[in-house]
Amino acid sequence: MSDDAPEASRALAEFREFRERMNREILAENNLVVNRFFALDGRAYEAGALDVKTKELLGLIASLVLRCDDCVTYHLVRCAEEGLTRDEIFEASSIGLIVGGSIVIPHLRRAVDRWSELEQTRGA
Amino acid sequence: MSDDAPEASRALAEFREFRERMNREILAENNLVVNRFFALDGRAYEAGALDVKTKELLGLIASLVLRCDDCVTYHLVRCAEEGLTRDEIFEASSIGLIVGGSIVIPHLRRAVDRWSELEQTRGA
Amino acid sequence: MSDDAPEASRALAEFREFRERMNREILAENNLVVNRFFALDGRAYEAGALDVKTKELLGLIASLVLRCDDCVTYHLVRCAEEGLTRDEIFEASSIGLIVGGSIVIPHLRRAVDRWSELEQTRGA
Amino acid sequence: MSDDAPEASRALAEFREFRERMNREILAENNLVVNRFFALDGRAYEAGALDVKTKELLGLIASLVLRCDDCVTYHLVRCAEEGLTRDEIFEASSIGLIVGGSIVIPHLRRAVDRWSELEQTRGA
Amino acid sequence: MSDDAPEASRALAEFREFRERMNREILAENNLVVNRFFALDGRAYEAGALDVKTKELLGLIASLVLRCDDCVTYHLVRCAEEGLTRDEIFEASSIGLIVGGSIVIPHLRRAVDRWSELEQTRGA
Amino acid sequence: MSDDAPEASRALAEFREFRERMNREILAENNLVVNRFFALDGRAYEAGALDVKTKELLGLIASLVLRCDDCVTYHLVRCAEEGLTRDEIFEASSIGLIVGGSIVIPHLRRAVDRWSELEQTRGA
Repeated sequence: MSDDAPEASRALAEFREFRERMNREILAENNLVVNRFFALDGRAYEAGALDVKTKELLGLIASLVLRCDDCVTYHLVRCAEEGLTRDEIFEASSIGLIVGGSIVIPHLRRAVDRWSELEQTRGA
Repeated sequence: MSDDAPEASRALAEFREFRERMNREILAENNLVVNRFFALDGRAYEAGALDVKTKELLGLIASLVLRCDDCVTYHLVRCAEEGLTRDEIFEASSIGLIVGGSIVIPHLRRAVDRWSELEQTRGA
Repeated sequence: MSDDAPEASRALAEFREFRERMNREILAENNLVVNRFFALDGRAYEAGALDVKTKELLGLIASLVLRCDDCVTYHLVRCAEEGLTRDEIFEASSIGLIVGGSIVIPHLRRAVDRWSELEQTRGA
Repeated sequence: MSDDAPEASRALAEFREFRERMNREILAENNLVVNRFFALDGRAYEAGALDVKTKELLGLIASLVLRCDDCVTYHLVRCAEEGLTRDEIFEASSIGLIVGGSIVIPHLRRAVDRWSELEQTRGA
Repeated sequence: MSDDAPEASRALAEFREFRERMNREILAENNLVVNRFFALDGRAYEAGALDVKTKELLGLIASLVLRCDDCVTYHLVRCAEEGLTRDEIFEASSIGLIVGGSIVIPHLRRAVDRWSELEQTRGA
Repeated sequence: MSDDAPEASRALAEFREFRERMNREILAENNLVVNRFFALDGRAYEAGALDVKTKELLGLIASLVLRCDDCVTYHLVRCAEEGLTRDEIFEASSIGLIVGGSIVIPHLRRAVDRWSELEQTRGA
């Protein structure tokens, strides 16, 4: 983690910490439907007829037009891990913007801010 | 158009006829914002950092999770034109189903029905 | 009603007939919350700090971005009754298109088709 | 099926026929994520800490506020099978109306129309 | 209020304080439509053909699939007051998850976190 | 800026600072579709068949029923600049509440809070 980006990293670290803590608490409840859904959610993004990169872009744009910041952050993290470029993220987002309209813009702002955080973190 | 699929073809033909007639009527109004938006909507799916196939899949899944049957039909037509396979459409749709939940299912049923129409039409 | 527009008039007549028949059936149930909500729904569009025309445009755009064809039709009928012009309807709709994105387009097509029906009916 | 309600029964029969035909076509595709989701969708409404009647009402109201007519129809059919009364359906719907607003009304109209169809069919 | 949960209690206290302060400010405006809607919103959850527990679960799931954290928190507070159990809340939420899809998960995380806060507060 | 409202002003200042910083970062990317959409978004609210006040109210209500706090804030700022009154804002919002239902209330609370901030700032 970079010395240049302590704040950005902290924001992402906080997101991850809450996400992982609550996922543990939810799964520990042993509700069959919830736990199977969580497992299935993981399976949906595995390589098949479409590769993982394409699937993560699909998850990203679905999250963007449905305007869920946490889902967008999650898929941006995964997109960064899969090596997608800033240009690819912007082009996918531009489709989300056209399909979903100006109501998507505040989420696009936060998404771009997150992506810059991810780039800083990776660049460290 | 196939002799085997007159009904399917008619449904798609009707969709296209209404879409084109109304687009003409809307554009003839010469509302600058509307007309520029329509032009931009076309540009968003042109090849760039992402190829056309990927962009059409992004348009498809955005339409599916936002539950717009006409938008889904439009992108399925484009996906067929771009040579995407039934497996690729199903995998993209499976992500739409996981992200959007069971509320997506009625739209998935109509999407699969449309895709079969498109396959029949092309197979002719 | 015009001799030139029997089909358009029938489509609107059908919408009205179903709407009125079901409203009667719903109100006859005497569910206090439902009946008061229906009454309040009427009050919301009465003249006050804003005039009726502006309020109908607000109802129209809210219906458009939430993508409810029946609600759009209802407000278009009211807009026509209040004397709003085709240009005013298009400008309001252009904001709906920008805010809500291309997912609004199929609803815009049907809205413009309805408005043309209303113009034909009035022009008779 | 009643002699008095051939039209109502036909509408429901058509809904069921399409639903079942497309479910078969979708499941035959053997997409693991889709098929597991369909199975899980069935499990979610089985009796547990909450009884089946309550779960069907939850499915109904979720469908109503998300404005999915087919989902509403499906849960109304299930509610009828579970013996829920017209009053119970109306009270649940009144909460859907308050939470979701007037945009829900067109779906409420169709829901009440469906429920009356179901009552006619059962009354035969 | 428990010594063990000062942070949780503070979060809920803050939510309540803002909610009550703004409700007072809104109602003081004396807008007839707004004030009647607020009154009606309260009436919708009173016992009738359905009991209060069921109605609060309906409000909870409607809020969850529409992804409104504040509405979810409000109904969780009411569910706690009505004595609903953690298992009942989880089963209702599992239906929300299936109907609304993975986009509901971030809201489910916050809902479970809130519920644990409520349990800590009550357990004090 | 008023001495009486340092906190309110700071909240708005923060909103503006993030909005402007991210807009610059987004536009600097030179994605043709995104940049043209941003330009078009500005054009949509210019005077034409409808005046600017009416257009800002349309933008406000569209944002309210789609439940986007940042979009609501932006249009409230513009409404204040255009000299719209508290009564006009409340009446427009009351239509948003009726159309969108109780799910709109948390956004209405924040909108009214923002409007009071704007009044304090202007009153200084």
